[in-house]
Order: sequence, then C-alpha cells, then structure tokens
Amino acid sequence: MTTLEKMGKNAKSASRILAVAGGKKNAALHAIAKGLRDCAEEIKKANAVDIENGRESGLRESLIDRLLLTDARIEGMAAGCEQVAALKDPIGETLSGSVLENGLEVRKIRVPMGVIGIIFEARPNVTADAAALCLKAGSAVILRGGKEAINSNKCIAAIMRQAIQSVGLPIDCIQLVEDTTRQSSIEMMGLSDYLDLLIPRGGAGLIKAVVENSKVPVIETGVGNCHVYVDESADLEMAANIIFNAKTSRPSVCNAIETVLVHKNIAAKALPIIKARLDEKNVEIHGCEKTKEILGDSIITATEDDWYTEYLDLKIAMRVVDSLEAAIEHIAKYSSGHSECIVTEDYENSRIFTAGVDSAAVYVNASTRFTDGGEFGLGAEIGISTQKLHARGPMGLNELTSMKFIINGNGQIR
Amino acid sequence: MTTLEKMGKNAKSASRILAVAGGKKNAALHAIAKGLRDCAEEIKKANAVDIENGRESGLRESLIDRLLLTDARIEGMAAGCEQVAALKDPIGETLSGSVLENGLEVRKIRVPMGVIGIIFEARPNVTADAAALCLKAGSAVILRGGKEAINSNKCIAAIMRQAIQSVGLPIDCIQLVEDTTRQSSIEMMGLSDYLDLLIPRGGAGLIKAVVENSKVPVIETGVGNCHVYVDESADLEMAANIIFNAKTSRPSVCNAIETVLVHKNIAAKALPIIKARLDEKNVEIHGCEKTKEILGDSIITATEDDWYTEYLDLKIAMRVVDSLEAAIEHIAKYSSGHSECIVTEDYENSRIFTAGVDSAAVYVNASTRFTDGGEFGLGAEIGISTQKLHARGPMGLNELTSMKFIINGNGQIR
Repeated sequence: MTTLEKMGKNAKSASRILAVAGGKKNAALHAIAKGLRDCAEEIKKANAVDIENGRESGLRESLIDRLLLTDARIEGMAAGCEQVAALKDPIGETLSGSVLENGLEVRKIRVPMGVIGIIFEARPNVTADAAALCLKAGSAVILRGGKEAINSNKCIAAIMRQAIQSVGLPIDCIQLVEDTTRQSSIEMMGLSDYLDLLIPRGGAGLIKAVVENSKVPVIETGVGNCHVYVDESADLEMAANIIFNAKTSRPSVCNAIETVLVHKNIAAKALPIIKARLDEKNVEIHGCEKTKEILGDSIITATEDDWYTEYLDLKIAMRVVDSLEAAIEHIAKYSSGHSECIVTEDYENSRIFTAGVDSAAVYVNASTRFTDGGEFGLGAEIGISTQKLHARGPMGLNELTSMKFIINGNGQIR
Repeated sequence: MTTLEKMGKNAKSASRILAVAGGKKNAALHAIAKGLRDCAEEIKKANAVDIENGRESGLRESLIDRLLLTDARIEGMAAGCEQVAALKDPIGETLSGSVLENGLEVRKIRVPMGVIGIIFEARPNVTADAAALCLKAGSAVILRGGKEAINSNKCIAAIMRQAIQSVGLPIDCIQLVEDTTRQSSIEMMGLSDYLDLLIPRGGAGLIKAVVENSKVPVIETGVGNCHVYVDESADLEMAANIIFNAKTSRPSVCNAIETVLVHKNIAAKALPIIKARLDEKNVEIHGCEKTKEILGDSIITATEDDWYTEYLDLKIAMRVVDSLEAAIEHIAKYSSGHSECIVTEDYENSRIFTAGVDSAAVYVNASTRFTDGGEFGLGAEIGISTQKLHARGPMGLNELTSMKFIINGNGQIR
C-alpha cells in the first residue's frame, strides 16, 4: 500500500464516524479556530520559511503575496471556521419524501459525500478554509497543496488535526499530502477506491490536468472567460459602469470580464464612452476591425486567440456584433460557461439572452462580479463550478454533499 | 474532424435549439411513437438480421432474447415515448430564488444538460427509451449501442430522426454512432468538447472501463451487490419472504440481493427457515463456516471472492455476523453501494442501520427490489446511479438536467 492509499483508507474510516458526528463538528470548528489563533506565531514562523524559499527560487511578487500569512490573514482563517460553524448543518435534511401505494415510506435524505480530495496551489489559507467546509459537510478531506506553501500547510494541518482529535473526532478527518511532487497529484487522481470527489482549485492548467486525468469524479472550478454584451437598447452609462466594475474592481478573479460585445447600431456611440471609463485604469483594449474603426488605430488588433483568453489582467477584448443572436453565438463559442451579462432596456431581449446563454450565471444589467458564494448568500464557498454535473456556479456546503434514499416498510415484497 | 467530432458539433448546435423548444418536445415524442408503430414491420426486418447474425456468431440464448424485438416490445417502446411525453417538463423549473439586499433578483433555474452520450450493450429498445428521456429533458443525445443490435438500432434511430424533423426540431437531436468498434467508445470518452455527460448502461466491465477512461463527466450506473441483514430481533418469516423475493423474483437485475448476513444469536433458528424458502427455487448457497455448521456440509464454502460477487443468478452468499455493527462493516467493505436491507423489530437498530449504511437505497423490512424509478414514482428511469456525485439511486428526468443562475438587476456593481 502506498502512502496515499493508506491515507485514503484512513480517511474512509474517519468519514464513517464523521458522517454521524452531529454537533461534534461545530465543536471541532471552534477548536480549530482557537488553535489557529493560539498558534499564530508558530504559523507565521513556518510561513516565513516558505516566503524565504519562494524569494530564493525567484517567485513573482504576486505569488509571494498569495503565499504570505499575516496576523490579519490568520485571524481571517480562524473567523472563517467560526462562520462555517454558524451555518446550518446540511446533513440529514429531508430533500423529498412520500408514501407509496404499498405503504413504503420513501425519503431522500442529504448525506455526506464521504472523502473529498482537494488539489490546490499557492494559497495556504485554502488549507483551513477548505478543511472547515468539508468537516461541516461531514466529509473527510485529503488536502494536497502546492510545494511553495508546504511548511505553512504542514503547520496549519497539524493544528487542525490536533483540534479535531481534542473533541473526540478521528484525527484523519483532515489529512495533508506532504509529498508535493507531480507524482502525488497523479496518484490522487487514481484514488477512486477511497475518494468520492476531487476538486482542483487553481489555474486553468491545473484544472485541465485534473479533469482530463482523474478517475475520481471531479468538479471543475473557476476558469472564467466572462462577457458583457451591450444591447442596442442599453443605457450606455450603466453599460460603461458595469464594464468598468466587472473588469477593473479585481481583474485577477474568475468573475471579472474579459470580452465586451457591442451591438453595431450603438457601437459608434457606446465604444468611446466605455473606453473613456476603462482609460481611467489604463485598460489595454484588443479590438476587432470595427472597434478599431471607431476607437482609432491605437487599439491593439484582436486575434482569434483574444476571444478565448482569460486575461486576468487590465486587458479587455472588444467586438462589434451584428445582433443579439450574434452575441449569443459568440458566447456559446468562446465562453468558459462562468458568468455573462446583457445590458439592455428591452424586455424581450433580456428574456432571449437569459434563456439562450448557457453559462452558470447569466445577468441582466448587473456586474458579473456578483458570482460568488458570499454574495449569493451561501455563507461560504469552496469554489465556482463551471461544469453542469452536480453543481454549477458558486458551491457552498450543500454542493459538497450527496443524498441517499431511506425506505421504511413492514414486509413489502415486489 | 473525425466522424464523432462532427456528430458532437452537430449535437451541440441541435441542443441549443432543443433547450428552448418547449412544447415541440412532446410533439416529437408523439411523432416518434407513431413512427415506431407505423414502421413495426421494418424494425422487425432489421432486427431479424441482427438475430440471424447473433445465432451465426453463437450468441447465448439469453442475449438473443435481449436482442429480440417482438410486436409487443415495439409497442412497449412506442407507449414508453407517450408516457415520457405525459411527464411534467423539468426544464425551466425555479429551484430556488431570493432578492439580495442590493436588489438583485437571483433565481436558480433547471436547464438541460446539453449533449448526453449513452454507451449501451445488446438491448435495442434502449435506443428509443434513452432517446425519449434525453429529448424530454431538453438534451441532444449521441447513442452508441452494441454491435449485436446495430441493424435494429439504425432502423429505430432513422425513424426517430425523421419524426423529430417532422415537427421542426433539428434532426441531430438524436444521433446513432454506426461504428461499433471499441475505437468509437474510446473516442466518445474523450469527446469533452461536445459531451456534457456520458452514461454507460450495461455490465460491470463496460461501466468500469467508462468510469476509468472517460474525460467526459460520467454517471456510474447499475452494479448491484446488494445485502439483506437479518437482525437478532427480526421476524423470521418476514426475513425469509424478503430474502426469497429479493433473490428470486428476478435474479438478473441490479436490485436483486447477493448476500445475506445473519446475526449469530438468531442464526441457528433463521438459517434453516431461509434455506427452506430458497430451496423452492434451488438457490445455490455459498456459506461461511458458521453457516455450514448450521446448514450442513452440502453448502458450498464461501470464499472472500463470494462477498464481492454480483451473481445475477440463483446463487447467494450467506454469512453469520457477530453484531449489527459487524453487518454494517461487511456492507461498507463489500457492497457496490446500491441497495441494502435490515430486517428488524428493533427501533434503535433500524435507526443505526439506516444512518450507518452508505448506499443509494437503505431499507427497513422491505425487499431491495423496489429500487427502481417506476416504483419510486419518477415516471421513467434512465438507470440507477451508484455514485455520489449529481445523482444517486434511480435517475429520472430531473437527474438528466443541470441548473443555472439568472440574475436580474438595474445597474448593480460590486
């Protein structure tokens, strides 16, 4: 048995106790919060080693920032555990139920997933955030973080494990894979005897690799090539505001937009207004030929690649389209299925767009930046699913659970 | 572009029209039913070729029977389409909704999956049954049946395609893969650019191959290593009735039981009663050592393999266990997670069993044979999921759908 198989086996055993642990789960979450606060100095010391290693190996400053754990970020992790504890326990909820003609009482009940694997990259706070959500959802978790954060992750995982043990739950409800080579990721993707679900959190490359290679069921998260379509009937000031907000308020996140589509009949008037707002933050525009005719040759010429690109940066693609239908076609072809918006004053066009666009979140007259578990009122979020199976859009506790049927009878046969 | 990629592309286009087709879907289902009835002679002629080829290549009689299409079975397919037409359209249902503090109206809506692939084996009626369900659920379908049924399948698919075209829906809402080599299955598993979901229907070997190799999200169906546990407190006549029914009423189906577990304190009394019932149908018993001590040496000695085996035959494994907990442990280790039953008169034991057994359907005092979409009132069934992601247990129309968020605002930014 390999190390990971042993971890899988231990997680499976732990998950069966956790599945019926009820109130002990909240006790564990509070113990974890306390542990994180009490050991803040220890965590920062471990984190300092990661930061030093990162600097030595020439990690970009933006990655160093993701890696860094400050007092505020540690307090954020602890407070996050308490917030998760305050959420309603999803386990045991009756989802539906009826009595059949033969007297059988059939109920569909929400149950834990079992064992969840999470593969993530540089952010060490994911270790605590993801573990807290899995714990509350009644599932054991196997965490496999990036090598850059290994010292921080080991320290945080040890604190959490001690905390859950202190309330009488099995220590292996939370486990961290200490081998951060590519091999351990690949092995996790094959661990279908023990893992019920695998969630990759990170860049497009990681997610693609997991989706293509995993034998364990996967939920694909986070790649967001999002669009705003400015309809012929749009309020142009509203359009410019929404585009400015959706592009510049936080360009590096998945619910930021990457492409603006503008109806041809409004383009000459709309594009200069939109550009004027984007210029405030020096957003680089990659435009189609018609966009360039209107905005001038200073605009970079967009290529086919631009329509596919998730810039995650102060760059944006712009295309003039012939019709609402052409906008929907463009989105169907190039979107990653995350979030799209129409800006329109036309009732029927709002209906056609929301019915015809097949993405996780479809907006009328609002910024795509709202696609978020917190904003949608889920209380907490493990990621944003861009697949259609099991979960789509922001995933909270419910999306980390499964269901089963319980049937009570008194001797019925068929 | 390969043939399958072209089919995928065409299915994707067709699915976008089908997604908003509303009432036309039922018109198509009625046209299919009429087409199947009108062309019954044609279908039987095509089927006769398959039957002849099957006989020539030495197919077992049980498989020949699965392959055979009689007037009654063709009428069954047609009536099945009409039954699906009579079901409530799942698409567009509001699953949840609320107004956020900032005035955004957020609704979660049921939408079609998109394009569904189905890989199945010898039964040609699956072609019509599965296509009807996918159509009603608003998804285009690509069907890949076994080579044994290829002539029947081609005939049925052509009838269905003509019918959907006759009501103005795209012909490629239903497509059949005519290449029945292993290669076409493998290619379907890699078609993640076009397929949103892949469902294997057939034997354990097919299902395992698809689960392990598919890059497309899969729902695992149908393998049923099901158990009945006879508690110390059981009504023994009820236990024998349930075991007899669950084993012998239709041994070849996935909700039939394969193993009986008996509490040690009741074993000496229970086992002879159970055996007497099973002897009526000459069920072959594979027993543990303790079972043999009670039932005598004529019983075959069960090996470790027996606990894992889905006999699908008039054979059954029997084991004496020390406790309720030992029964739950046995099920956790060997079950495929389909259906399990406890026979008990003890209230607390019924609670411990239903909470502790992690299978799709957990019964108290009733036959596992009820795990079925029709029995559970789903109206129709595409299969029985034994995985935990997306769907678990009998899958009806709802389980073939996805969801999306629609958000209506009036200029909200974040």
